Amino acid sequence: MPGLIQSIERAAAVIRLLAAGSGWLRASEIGASLGLAKATTHGILRTLRHVGFVQQDPATGRYQLAAAVLAPGTRPLDRNELRSRVINWADPLAARSGEAVRVGALLDGQVLVVHHVFRPDDTPQQLETGALLPAHATALGKVLLAHDALSARDAGAGPLTAYTRRTVTKGAALRRTLAEVRTQGWAAEVEESVAGQAGVAAPIRTYGGLVVGAIGVSGPTDRICDSAGRPRAALVALVREIARAVSRDLAKVGS
Amino acid sequence: MPGLIQSIERAAAVIRLLAAGSGWLRASEIGASLGLAKATTHGILRTLRHVGFVQQDPATGRYQLAAAVLAPGTRPLDRNELRSRVINWADPLAARSGEAVRVGALLDGQVLVVHHVFRPDDTPQQLETGALLPAHATALGKVLLAHDALSARDAGAGPLTAYTRRTVTKGAALRRTLAEVRTQGWAAEVEESVAGQAGVAAPIRTYGGLVVGAIGVSGPTDRICDSAGRPRAALVALVREIARAVSRDLAKVGS
Repeated sequence: MPGLIQSIERAAAVIRLLAAGSGWLRASEIGASLGLAKATTHGILRTLRHVGFVQQDPATGRYQLAAAVLAPGTRPLDRNELRSRVINWADPLAARSGEAVRVGALLDGQVLVVHHVFRPDDTPQQLETGALLPAHATALGKVLLAHDALSARDAGAGPLTAYTRRTVTKGAALRRTLAEVRTQGWAAEVEESVAGQAGVAAPIRTYGGLVVGAIGVSGPTDRICDSAGRPRAALVALVREIARAVSRDLAKVGS
Repeated sequence: MPGLIQSIERAAAVIRLLAAGSGWLRASEIGASLGLAKATTHGILRTLRHVGFVQQDPATGRYQLAAAVLAPGTRPLDRNELRSRVINWADPLAARSGEAVRVGALLDGQVLVVHHVFRPDDTPQQLETGALLPAHATALGKVLLAHDALSARDAGAGPLTAYTRRTVTKGAALRRTLAEVRTQGWAAEVEESVAGQAGVAAPIRTYGGLVVGAIGVSGPTDRICDSAGRPRAALVALVREIARAVSRDLAKVGS
């Protein structure tokens, strides 16, 4: 039918078929029930498994609906998993940028720091893993809000807490900033959460473009920004490159 | 990624996004969150709505996950709906074939007759709507079993109740028959449930090939079958034509 996407209809049919019964089905049984070719059935099942909607019994190879897959609050990736997947990329980002790296995910409208790598020098630093940061005042938070319409709607209602003179506190200004973040693919904070500190962050995406976290660097403004007070272009490019690498990793088959 | 179907990944991302929050989202918000183009987002939402996974608020146009969409036992089409959708096709089938028409859906391994049109002559006939027929001994039932792997597995375990001398009672024989039904796209019964009676049926499919019912004709063997004792080719063609017409109707946008 025009306007409908056949592969999504077929995937929905597979889900309905699995939801209707309580047993495990073979790929061949699913294909036969729906009149689908073998390769088509396998492609659909592989994708549904990848996105966590179906599970496969390793012993028999049969399929069943994943438990509680759409329960409210179910996340595509839990925070421990995000952390474990991002660790291999956070260290190189810290080494190549010479800056501290933080990885964050939204938690009730705030940014939960799920991973923190110290700036690779000998300065004393405090571990921020587990800390909650204000979303509207941080680069990580702006990236996450820009891709979470409901949290963005709450934040965009304003007024917002001022942490420094430069914190964006008006809803309309924040909404404009978030639109810009979506368009350019990264966010910055320049002395908006802590005086003298700046940061740059980019989205971590999984299948279908779903943003599951943000990764970024932060440090003294004169290290993060150029003489015009804007984030250094090379640093932005590096953060985006690493964010894309993490995203590619997350989108891989079998991940 | 090779082996994964992008549109299914995107649909899954939309579902996750809607499942994560409790508010209604605009199509534009969904597209912006996932970095999808407007036309892509609309195609996905239209399809997800068509298959009953998301609902749209008619007043605001915003989307939310459909309630309890994947609860166990949820059916793609309830039986009243199947009946109301098939009524317009059952009458023409009875008129054109000159035979009684029955529409069935599986209920706990049996065939529930959801609609029955009398043979268009003046013979006394008894309304079978609401009756339960044995699946393995009827054309309707064979069509439904052939496309429901779990029920077929139960029935295929045999032994099966004999209603006449010709009822298929061995599991292996039934499994062979069902494979044939899937290949040829229709099923027959020749004096297998009631002596002197025969029938022909074909599947009613909705999106993705999902079989939600069967439609068929039944009557005295000498009316349904040719002199070789096989269902008349013209009758088989007519039943299949009408089944496909119902299926096309069910697969339409907005249905």
